[in-house]
Amino acid sequence: MFFYAQVMAELLGTYILMFVGLGSVLISYKQPLTIVGIAVAWGLVVMVMIYTFGHISGGHFNPAVTIASAVSCKFPWRHVPKYIGVQLLASTLAALTLSVLFHGQESIGDTLTLYKSPTTTFEALTWEFIISFILMLTVCGVATDHRAVRYSNFHSQLLKQINELSGVAVGAAILFNCLIAGWFCRPITGASMNPARSIGPAIVSGNYSNIWVYIVAPILGTTAAGFIYSFLRLPLAKTSESTTKSI
Amino acid sequence: MFFYAQVMAELLGTYILMFVGLGSVLISYKQPLTIVGIAVAWGLVVMVMIYTFGHISGGHFNPAVTIASAVSCKFPWRHVPKYIGVQLLASTLAALTLSVLFHGQESIGDTLTLYKSPTTTFEALTWEFIISFILMLTVCGVATDHRAVRYSNFHSQLLKQINELSGVAVGAAILFNCLIAGWFCRPITGASMNPARSIGPAIVSGNYSNIWVYIVAPILGTTAAGFIYSFLRLPLAKTSESTTKSI
Amino acid sequence: MFFYAQVMAELLGTYILMFVGLGSVLISYKQPLTIVGIAVAWGLVVMVMIYTFGHISGGHFNPAVTIASAVSCKFPWRHVPKYIGVQLLASTLAALTLSVLFHGQESIGDTLTLYKSPTTTFEALTWEFIISFILMLTVCGVATDHRAVRYSNFHSQLLKQINELSGVAVGAAILFNCLIAGWFCRPITGASMNPARSIGPAIVSGNYSNIWVYIVAPILGTTAAGFIYSFLRLPLAKTSESTTKSI
Amino acid sequence: MFFYAQVMAELLGTYILMFVGLGSVLISYKQPLTIVGIAVAWGLVVMVMIYTFGHISGGHFNPAVTIASAVSCKFPWRHVPKYIGVQLLASTLAALTLSVLFHGQESIGDTLTLYKSPTTTFEALTWEFIISFILMLTVCGVATDHRAVRYSNFHSQLLKQINELSGVAVGAAILFNCLIAGWFCRPITGASMNPARSIGPAIVSGNYSNIWVYIVAPILGTTAAGFIYSFLRLPLAKTSESTTKSI
Repeated sequence: MFFYAQVMAELLGTYILMFVGLGSVLISYKQPLTIVGIAVAWGLVVMVMIYTFGHISGGHFNPAVTIASAVSCKFPWRHVPKYIGVQLLASTLAALTLSVLFHGQESIGDTLTLYKSPTTTFEALTWEFIISFILMLTVCGVATDHRAVRYSNFHSQLLKQINELSGVAVGAAILFNCLIAGWFCRPITGASMNPARSIGPAIVSGNYSNIWVYIVAPILGTTAAGFIYSFLRLPLAKTSESTTKSI
Repeated sequence: MFFYAQVMAELLGTYILMFVGLGSVLISYKQPLTIVGIAVAWGLVVMVMIYTFGHISGGHFNPAVTIASAVSCKFPWRHVPKYIGVQLLASTLAALTLSVLFHGQESIGDTLTLYKSPTTTFEALTWEFIISFILMLTVCGVATDHRAVRYSNFHSQLLKQINELSGVAVGAAILFNCLIAGWFCRPITGASMNPARSIGPAIVSGNYSNIWVYIVAPILGTTAAGFIYSFLRLPLAKTSESTTKSI
Repeated sequence: MFFYAQVMAELLGTYILMFVGLGSVLISYKQPLTIVGIAVAWGLVVMVMIYTFGHISGGHFNPAVTIASAVSCKFPWRHVPKYIGVQLLASTLAALTLSVLFHGQESIGDTLTLYKSPTTTFEALTWEFIISFILMLTVCGVATDHRAVRYSNFHSQLLKQINELSGVAVGAAILFNCLIAGWFCRPITGASMNPARSIGPAIVSGNYSNIWVYIVAPILGTTAAGFIYSFLRLPLAKTSESTTKSI
Repeated sequence: MFFYAQVMAELLGTYILMFVGLGSVLISYKQPLTIVGIAVAWGLVVMVMIYTFGHISGGHFNPAVTIASAVSCKFPWRHVPKYIGVQLLASTLAALTLSVLFHGQESIGDTLTLYKSPTTTFEALTWEFIISFILMLTVCGVATDHRAVRYSNFHSQLLKQINELSGVAVGAAILFNCLIAGWFCRPITGASMNPARSIGPAIVSGNYSNIWVYIVAPILGTTAAGFIYSFLRLPLAKTSESTTKSI
């Protein structure tokens, strides 16, 4: 019964995230929103959804974040398929809603127009890897409890992910990632960091070319970040423990 | 006596919200404020008013939020008419002040220029429904006490609405809603989400055409969000209770 | 000895506030900073200075805020002259520094170019009154302790002014005030809200015409806000007291 | 073993800071990011890195901040060389990564194009001194524990540097410093405040002219700020102590 709330939170959160983010890309074709406006829209909606649903579901909204959380041993593997399924469903529904509201417009904000721009596949993989790495490092950093408390069960661990300013920090990371990596294919959809963000519009538009780049690179980037951060956390935890003992 | 402070807070808060928000729309006719500047003005003034008056009145400033709060059983119905009356009065006074200060300018930032743009009534209803839904979901999410404490009385419930970052989150939701939905009629007043925001300028300008869209859609959107969020909250509360018992 | 730190904090804080704020106005003559960039600079520097010096001096940086705080009985009158003197000194020093660094440039960001624009004195007074009123209302709102504790002494009262998000809220109020009121005389220095901000550059440029507008209106606006907010606070305090008794 | 985590945190944090910051400068050659977009990128990445790594390493990412922290007696001198070495290494690696990703582009965002613009060395020194002074004053202000607790050991002192809003305040200081001082040499890299930010790209481009300005001025500015702030802190600490005694 408890898990139903989590799945609903991921569904609603990812839907709103995609509706607002993809919507800002679509609107930029008609209004001078500029890359700054699009980056602000993506950053703020991630922040707001983390504060709205983070204390229920952990606020992933991203299959790469869900997988990386499971790999670095914090998120139970048995919930991963449900989370990813619901994230992909929400992204597809959001792209579908927008394709109805923006009927007659060519693109629906998909990230697959890669080869129109002078970027090689390797460069695209590198960019997506780096910005997904930065994103997940931020998620790990702000979700770490500073006093290195051992997580007793799954629910309390979710609550811990809601540090006061975690939403601000993760939203800001999305924002500057969009600023620096959103440019390299002209329709500003370069900075994906999220397989669901790329797969949803691909399903609606039927254009799956190069989709693997936006699946492989974010997952590798977030998993690498989760792995590295778990090493940074270990010595800190040890020190705190010894400090506690000495008191 | 206590309620007098609440009514005054809603009056002042809604007045300042409308003065700054509508003011930014009016100034955009003379200065290149762009849609980003207008969205920033609306988002920040909502945030600031929540921090200034939220601990007194709950920081509604919006009949649709007041009604949705009452429907989802948190806000007492007997206060609803006073809140809505004072919100409409404040919005009308703000529009009146601006029409004096910007004398000789045609528009006063009303949302009723809908049919000048190629948007059907159904599309306008859909947009207003979705962005009001997002707004209310955010309000519910940040106002939820994470430890699911039972609300004992009206006053303590109001205090609980003032989470640390509730103002930041709700202001940001307004901001990105303005970014994505503010465009579709050219004078950027598309994203209302607030019947008071539309009725006030309509009374001052005497132009009531399509005003029902901006009354019906926000109320339906916020009520739907309040309804859905109350379902998400239930299982969480149950889990916390059982956790408390087990300790 | 303690008061020396406060005076130094007001001196440094007001100097940096004026250096950055006036600096952004001067740079807008050379770079396309736009009104949004200038408003962001003023808003952020106020926020940062409140977090840097607020816990030492209360973070006024503005004679109108100091006077209004004294009128509404929170700030001791005997400190008012020292605070105002040091604020005026800091503003003049900042304007002097900028006039050296921007040698050869005509304006130094003074607010006294009023009559070049089609604004009457009455309108200027109205705008400055309203935005100063909004500013002080925000200061009062975020500085109010929500549990209505009686202030025991001057020092603890200063510490209470440093609510977590007070800097964010006051900075944001400055930002949107600059967005809406900064426009009406073309060199974007319309939104003063601060006699020190207008007197400093006036002393350096030697142009005192209409300076009284920027002294009278902000002081009236902040004092009115402090007065009104003290009425809002009273019933809340009474309720809390009775609540405490019943427990 | 504990120190390994700190060094890794400074390495990763400075690398990401430089990658995003320098990246935004490079992208501004191709996309209309404007000075506001670049300032936002620098400000947000500093904020995010402080929240991600601040509780591990203190979040310096800047040799001038490390030296000033050591001078004002808070940071142990024996760690200074390791911190500075790792910061310079990270900056060089980030510049190298960008020079590969942006192959064929002339500049790599170095701050050494000073004399192309009509700015004398003295003016450059003054600007860098003032903005580094403002930066360090902010770092000191938000890192000060308000109750003036004596720091017992190095680790607990690092934890204290992570005030809730320290990242927001320091990031905002970077942002407005970039807004006002980023302009004076046309490629917007004027506002360095950080020797590592200037040395890294200099090593990769091989252009060391005037590099001393960006080493000397930031270190003098931050050290002066640390010195002055320690005077402001002293009387406050004394007062608190006497207050504590009287209780």
